Amino acid sequence: PAAAVGRHVIGALDDREALLDVASSAEVVTYEWEGVPASAARALEDAGHRVEPSTAALEVSQDRLAEKTTFRNLGIDVPEFADVPTLEALHAAAEAVGLPAILKTRRGGYDGKGQVLVRAASELDAARAALGTSAPLILEQHISFDRELSILAVRARDGDTRFWPLVQNTHRDGILRTSRAPAPRLEPAMQALAEALITKLLEQLAYVGVLALELFQVGHRLLANEMAPRVHNSGHWTIEGSTTSQFENHLRAVLGLPLGRTDTRGVVAMLNCIGDLPDAASVLAVEGTHLHLYGKEPRPGRKLGHVAVTAQDVEQLDSRLAQVTEALGL
Amino acid sequence: PAAAVGRHVIGALDDREALLDVASSAEVVTYEWEGVPASAARALEDAGHRVEPSTAALEVSQDRLAEKTTFRNLGIDVPEFADVPTLEALHAAAEAVGLPAILKTRRGGYDGKGQVLVRAASELDAARAALGTSAPLILEQHISFDRELSILAVRARDGDTRFWPLVQNTHRDGILRTSRAPAPRLEPAMQALAEALITKLLEQLAYVGVLALELFQVGHRLLANEMAPRVHNSGHWTIEGSTTSQFENHLRAVLGLPLGRTDTRGVVAMLNCIGDLPDAASVLAVEGTHLHLYGKEPRPGRKLGHVAVTAQDVEQLDSRLAQVTEALGL
Repeated sequence: PAAAVGRHVIGALDDREALLDVASSAEVVTYEWEGVPASAARALEDAGHRVEPSTAALEVSQDRLAEKTTFRNLGIDVPEFADVPTLEALHAAAEAVGLPAILKTRRGGYDGKGQVLVRAASELDAARAALGTSAPLILEQHISFDRELSILAVRARDGDTRFWPLVQNTHRDGILRTSRAPAPRLEPAMQALAEALITKLLEQLAYVGVLALELFQVGHRLLANEMAPRVHNSGHWTIEGSTTSQFENHLRAVLGLPLGRTDTRGVVAMLNCIGDLPDAASVLAVEGTHLHLYGKEPRPGRKLGHVAVTAQDVEQLDSRLAQVTEALGL
Repeated sequence: PAAAVGRHVIGALDDREALLDVASSAEVVTYEWEGVPASAARALEDAGHRVEPSTAALEVSQDRLAEKTTFRNLGIDVPEFADVPTLEALHAAAEAVGLPAILKTRRGGYDGKGQVLVRAASELDAARAALGTSAPLILEQHISFDRELSILAVRARDGDTRFWPLVQNTHRDGILRTSRAPAPRLEPAMQALAEALITKLLEQLAYVGVLALELFQVGHRLLANEMAPRVHNSGHWTIEGSTTSQFENHLRAVLGLPLGRTDTRGVVAMLNCIGDLPDAASVLAVEGTHLHLYGKEPRPGRKLGHVAVTAQDVEQLDSRLAQVTEALGL
């Protein structure tokens, strides 16, 4: 994405010379994807470059075991989980975690890829085979949650931290479909809890930039699912719905500038356009909508853009959302 | 500016083959500068391409005589003016218009370039010489106005038209320095009058896109100064201050899509960064500010970016504006 606005160096993600070449003219280095090898970021740090968000955040977020362990060590509730370093460890892990559970690759999975639901012990070996990899795995307890939420926060170099309100997310086939901000019927105590949890992470990781934390709500508990050390799909609503968007505040933080206000404007829903391009005229004919397309070729399961639906209150939002859903053929 | 996001064809502005090459893969052709020769736009229209805003709008806006004549023919008040086709016509024009007056080139002037103030008949010949051109001129009455305002409107292909509120502008050395939106102490009757005036232009020109109309307020009268067939510097505040920015609505209109709402959010001031880059940290340390830099090399008199200052009310805006003015060293 950055090729359009700067010098373009092509190299493998772990090509140290290419990385140093890019970084040589930069005051700060950042990444927009946690699939970047942490060793690459570490090499730049070791060469004296400032890398934000921190390499520590990158390392934690790209390994589900390190991530869950970090959450637990910080006193952040998580579903039960167990390391599955070998095939032999799988059945013992199922005993420890309980079933149903989800078997996942420790690294590289996203949008529901690299994971299999296991309902009974008899399915364990098939699940292992279905993942089709000899890479290290993790087994995670399958939680019956009330709803999925996420919180986004931004932290500046001087520690100044701002939060956006909890967002309610809906996934299908492992892919985020919709976000609603603020989450409907959001209790102040839940917001305060979520802010306390993400603050522990921000401080532990000496974090600079926007951090997203995905959560399961179970009654009045919040269990951490995963984090993302970057702007996040569930924060796209902030373009229209917040005084300062996640993108602007991420850049401000990474560049060492003061943060902007994160007040919310009305209520917003975000719908992802997945696989097919939407009919722009039908979507934009609905009052309060804004369409963002990413310039990608359509492909099944691919996020091609999103629609923001803005409204003054929940009733108006529900009405507009129904019209947009129809316009999108969902 | 478009080179970063599409195929880049390099040619003179009147290179018909190059224009047809660019247009061949486009559903609609637009321009972002009224210096584009109208003949180039006309050639594309004649070849069957859709050009928005209309070539007629381009023709009118790039010739001050055609522009003022169009205004007057539509019943839009203008300062007195006279055509100066020849050197001999100059003194007769001064008689007709009255002095002080401003001698301007009919084409090509912007940001105060290509114009000279004439206070007395004895200065006429020197003014003519100072312009250093044999191009056709126009003499315009110098108005003692109460303030400078501008109104922006957007019109869709189906004629749907939306307006933003009147903005109060301050120029120095012929360059726009600040805009305040909505204009302070804005009377509904003034807004209604401005909307009526720009609507005449939009309809006369079968206009599609954002149109800006610069006005002088004299008591309860509005006199048209000039128009711009594009997004306008005095509309940059809409990025933060309107439900839909001038940029988004211009694209929606040009692309044949439904328009977005133009409700105003709070009050906004826009300050141009001219000649020197601002100290970003100082500017952004002021609550409610957003900084936009255009990636241009600093040069005296050049617009390098702008600061938007947002607030809930005029008092808060005045306070923040004073802080930003200090941060900018103005």
